[in-house]
Amino acid sequence: MTAAIDFYFDFSSPYGYFASTRIDDLAQKYGRNVAWHPILLGVVFKTTGASPLPQLPLKGDYSWRDFERTARFHGIEYKRPTHFPLPTTHAARAMLWLQNHHGDDLAAVFARSVYRALFVDDINIAEPAEIMKLAEPLGVDVQALDAGATSYQIKDQLKAEIEVAMAKGVFGSPFVIVDGEPFWGFDRFDQVEAHLKSRRQTELRAVPNLDTKEKKPA
Amino acid sequence: MTAAIDFYFDFSSPYGYFASTRIDDLAQKYGRNVAWHPILLGVVFKTTGASPLPQLPLKGDYSWRDFERTARFHGIEYKRPTHFPLPTTHAARAMLWLQNHHGDDLAAVFARSVYRALFVDDINIAEPAEIMKLAEPLGVDVQALDAGATSYQIKDQLKAEIEVAMAKGVFGSPFVIVDGEPFWGFDRFDQVEAHLKSRRQTELRAVPNLDTKEKKPA
Repeated sequence: MTAAIDFYFDFSSPYGYFASTRIDDLAQKYGRNVAWHPILLGVVFKTTGASPLPQLPLKGDYSWRDFERTARFHGIEYKRPTHFPLPTTHAARAMLWLQNHHGDDLAAVFARSVYRALFVDDINIAEPAEIMKLAEPLGVDVQALDAGATSYQIKDQLKAEIEVAMAKGVFGSPFVIVDGEPFWGFDRFDQVEAHLKSRRQTELRAVPNLDTKEKKPA
Repeated sequence: MTAAIDFYFDFSSPYGYFASTRIDDLAQKYGRNVAWHPILLGVVFKTTGASPLPQLPLKGDYSWRDFERTARFHGIEYKRPTHFPLPTTHAARAMLWLQNHHGDDLAAVFARSVYRALFVDDINIAEPAEIMKLAEPLGVDVQALDAGATSYQIKDQLKAEIEVAMAKGVFGSPFVIVDGEPFWGFDRFDQVEAHLKSRRQTELRAVPNLDTKEKKPA
C-alpha cells in the first residue's frame, strides 16, 4: 500500500460532493487509501479573495446548470438543494470529532451521508439536530458527538487543519494531493487517475526486481 | 449542416489556447462549423469581479503547474510564455478586421497562429509588429490590417461583440455555446462532445422518417 490520497472538501461544495462519490473507488483501484479532510471554503476564500461560485454575477446561473449537467454526465444522483448556501462548520467539526474518536473509516461513511443528505435528500445539514440524525445509524453516542463538535478543542483543530491545508496549497473544493501533486476540481479526476496509473506502473516495474533478488539462492 | 458552435476566447488564456487546438476537429466530427469570437477577459472581469487565474494567491502557482500538466495530458504543445500577462486587445481587433475583410476561415487560421505564437514560440503578441508578421503568410495587406485594427470602427465592434457575449452569459475563456447550451472551460469538452453526439443521434433518427415519407408513392 502506497501513500494515501489527501482529499479536501467543503460540505457545501457540489463538485466536492461529486468527487466524494468517486474518490474511494478511484483510490482502491490503484491500491491507495483516502484521507478525508473537511475544510471551510469561507476561511480559505478570505485568503484567496475568491467567492462562492453560485454567488458570482453571470457565473451563478451557469454554475447551477453545470452542477446538474455534470451530475447527469457522470451518472451521479443530485438534486438542487434549497438550503444553499449554508454554513458547514458544524458538519466539518462533527467529522473531525468522529475521526478522533471512531477512526477515519467511520468518519468517511459519515461524510458521504452528510453529502448525500444535502445534495440528494435536501436536508439542512447546518442544523446540529440533522447532523445527530445522520450519525445515529453509525452507532455512535450522538450526544457526545454534538458536545464534541462544539468543544474548543475541535474548533481549534478545524482551524489548524485548514491552516495546514492552505500551507500545502489547497484553495478550493474538491482538492486532491497525491504524492505531492495538487489537483483542483472534480474535472481533474482524469489527471488524478493518470498520475495514479503511472505511479503504479513505476512500482510494478520495481517489484519483479525485488522478487528476483529475494529468490536468488544464498 | 446544423448550427455553428460559438467559441469565445481571450488570446492570453492558456485553456483557451488548448481549446483552440481541438475545437475544429470536435465540431467537424459532428458536422458543425465553429464561429470564433475573440473577447477580452479584462473587460469581462470588470463585470464578474474575477481576476486572472495566475495572479490569485495560492491559485497562481497551481495554475502554472496545471497549464503544463494539462497540455501534457492532452498531448498539446505548450511552453510557458515569458510575456505574461499581456494585453490582447490588438490581436483581438486584428482578428475582427480579418473576419470582416477576409472571412471567418482565414481569421481562424490567424487566431490559431496567434495562440501558437504566444504559447509555443514565446512571441510577444501584444506588439502590433508581431501581429503583422503573423498575418503576412496569409497573403493579406498587413498595413491595411494594422490600420484597420486601430480604427474606431473595429474598436467599437470589439466592444460591442464583448457586450453581446456577456449578454449571452459568457464570463470566461474558453467558453462554448452550442444550441443555447453554455460550457465553460476546456475541461467541459467531454460534455460538449456528449451534447453534440446526442444531438446528432436525434437528427439521425429524424432523417430516415423524412426519407420514408419522400419515397412513398404519390
